[in-house]
Amino acid sequence: MKNLIVGQSGGPTSVINASLAGVYEEAKKLGYDHVYGMINGIEGLLEENIIDLDLYLSDKRSLELLKRTPSSYLQTCRFKLGTYIDHPDIYEKIFDILDKHDIDSFIYIGGNDSMDTVENLSDYAIINKRRQNFIGVPKTIDNDLPITDHCPGFGSAAKYIATSIREIVRDSVCYGVKHSTVAIVEVMGRHAGWLTAASSLAKSDDCEGVDAIFLPEVPLDLDKFVEKVRTLAKKKPAIVIVVSEGIKTTTGEFVCEMGKDNVGVDAFGHKQLNGCADVLANLIKEKTGLKTRPIILSSLQRAAAHVASLTDVKEAEKVGKHGAKLAFNNESGKMVIMERVSNNPYRIKYSSFNNIHDIANLEKKVPLEWIDQENNYVKDELIDYIRPLIIGEVKQYYKDGVPEHLIRKD
Amino acid sequence: MKNLIVGQSGGPTSVINASLAGVYEEAKKLGYDHVYGMINGIEGLLEENIIDLDLYLSDKRSLELLKRTPSSYLQTCRFKLGTYIDHPDIYEKIFDILDKHDIDSFIYIGGNDSMDTVENLSDYAIINKRRQNFIGVPKTIDNDLPITDHCPGFGSAAKYIATSIREIVRDSVCYGVKHSTVAIVEVMGRHAGWLTAASSLAKSDDCEGVDAIFLPEVPLDLDKFVEKVRTLAKKKPAIVIVVSEGIKTTTGEFVCEMGKDNVGVDAFGHKQLNGCADVLANLIKEKTGLKTRPIILSSLQRAAAHVASLTDVKEAEKVGKHGAKLAFNNESGKMVIMERVSNNPYRIKYSSFNNIHDIANLEKKVPLEWIDQENNYVKDELIDYIRPLIIGEVKQYYKDGVPEHLIRKD
Repeated sequence: MKNLIVGQSGGPTSVINASLAGVYEEAKKLGYDHVYGMINGIEGLLEENIIDLDLYLSDKRSLELLKRTPSSYLQTCRFKLGTYIDHPDIYEKIFDILDKHDIDSFIYIGGNDSMDTVENLSDYAIINKRRQNFIGVPKTIDNDLPITDHCPGFGSAAKYIATSIREIVRDSVCYGVKHSTVAIVEVMGRHAGWLTAASSLAKSDDCEGVDAIFLPEVPLDLDKFVEKVRTLAKKKPAIVIVVSEGIKTTTGEFVCEMGKDNVGVDAFGHKQLNGCADVLANLIKEKTGLKTRPIILSSLQRAAAHVASLTDVKEAEKVGKHGAKLAFNNESGKMVIMERVSNNPYRIKYSSFNNIHDIANLEKKVPLEWIDQENNYVKDELIDYIRPLIIGEVKQYYKDGVPEHLIRKD
Repeated sequence: MKNLIVGQSGGPTSVINASLAGVYEEAKKLGYDHVYGMINGIEGLLEENIIDLDLYLSDKRSLELLKRTPSSYLQTCRFKLGTYIDHPDIYEKIFDILDKHDIDSFIYIGGNDSMDTVENLSDYAIINKRRQNFIGVPKTIDNDLPITDHCPGFGSAAKYIATSIREIVRDSVCYGVKHSTVAIVEVMGRHAGWLTAASSLAKSDDCEGVDAIFLPEVPLDLDKFVEKVRTLAKKKPAIVIVVSEGIKTTTGEFVCEMGKDNVGVDAFGHKQLNGCADVLANLIKEKTGLKTRPIILSSLQRAAAHVASLTDVKEAEKVGKHGAKLAFNNESGKMVIMERVSNNPYRIKYSSFNNIHDIANLEKKVPLEWIDQENNYVKDELIDYIRPLIIGEVKQYYKDGVPEHLIRKD
């Protein structure tokens, strides 16, 4: 028996299920006897909460629906595995469960933290001569994984943002010169400004685009920010400004925390960042008297599969397939990566990277040379980098007026 | 010379431009020599800010793009015309401008306030024996215009809401039983809960739907609200609740104003309502300790043309065409209305209504008998009413990864 297990971890994206579909399809093609899914990632695996994916995905239509379903079909977790020195019992339990089900290939689809899990399990297997292979398949809307050119999940989020911003701009300019308004749009991205930068893709012959973009890579000078808006307001009535949720002031304070009593933390101890658009909208209103409107794109950025990028969906599928191939070929402790062979025409080569810890503990930020700090905007290099990733549309299956999804009925 | 002028007024929708396209196409077909557009509605007309639409819309592709472009192509206004007794000079000025350009037909696409303008101008024309006819074409995402079965603009907003809520639900349930979260989604609708009710259309075989819906037609008992969430949280980990932006407490206070220092007002003196999701999310967090996430759908509800309802776009076009026909036939002081002849199959009859003041000064609210107050949900009658309005998708023209729009280049 040759069995494979796949899990999804970390925050959802619009295409993480396309990677799952890719892993499943390729694993079946390669001849694995069973392809299992762990429910809630490693956290569920530890409770032996696993399913046989043949019972769920064996027909073509289910697979096609899966590729169009946002968020994690197998559900997810934010479980810190820790090191095998600190928790040998947990590691032994995981390997016992894998052995019990004759599983020799383990594929984990996730972001930085999940790659740490992959590397730890792989190291343990090597040291303790266990038979299992561990492969990481990248996903994150934030695009902050290093080494790989970009990350599946980012393209669809970027396409949603560019599309939404175009609609927000149309909405904003409708009063013409009669009423001045300042829309402050808040985009996800804790430390890396890739998604915020994607708002630049709204601009074209048929869209004015946004007036300023503030990435978390550059501290926000609040006085200059107010002055920028004041200057813009003299020239045009409808202003649209985009800011990253994680932006900090020049004194290092999170903008979203200004004037807030308490801020929650997530399971990893990350602070919950939300609401800097509110803070900045109030600031502008107070300092300039202009009418402001905070718009927080919120969780739709990572779930708006109805406007997913076809390029992104196909790439998500391919990284999944590549992951299954690596595991089948007895590779372990590797993450699938994408290399941009050329940008015009856009071509990607799939390969893998060994030192996953380098990936796990680094966040890829927007290079400062791609940021136009003087004009509070991004440079063409950044737009050229993102553009190919949002190209193409997925034909959705609509039923009763809404896009159909695939959900598990256990 | 027989000329027609058309204007757009009030808040934007995804399909108000489809009505404009309908007016233009039909007017040309009927043989009007010129079809003019007023920029910024009546406010621009008073400054003689008008354009000849032949210069902008004469090719088929421009018209098709126009139907796919959200917000007001001609831009809009929120101008209170007042009565002719108080402002005879303004009325005279308007009619002089219309005469100067040989305009005998005036079509105004808008909501309640715009219909007031249509009726006032029509009354003035009759009393003062002016030649012009005035016809109102309905639009509003809120669906709060009486007499007409529903309003163009509502169906596309409802489709966006149902689609987005399905994606929010997928996003919310991804942690399974591991983490409890309460998402509070805020939907537009100052006094009428039609849009908030549209969140019920998310539910289907492949979506769990939302757990509770709070419409502005029923005052919100905050203690019962907290209790409801507490009860839900005992049964399931991921809770999604939808509330109207305009919801009030049992003591008559706007929820969004609770704990806020000041709230702005728009040009009509309407209070700017925004943020009741924040207030309720904080309340739940404080009272139950549950993790909460406020999600405000914001202006995308009225501008997300990329997911417009085909039914809505076609109806918007048809009310525009019907308006042009009425004006051509020397009708005046009327608003185009839609009558639902049957629901299954869904069939609409287009006609007109005389007493526009009845429309202008009334808001159509959700009937209390369509609300399930006990379970904080809506009844099947309400779902059956909305469902046909979100059916069908518009093939978008994508360019460089984003939907193409038509914008004016004056």
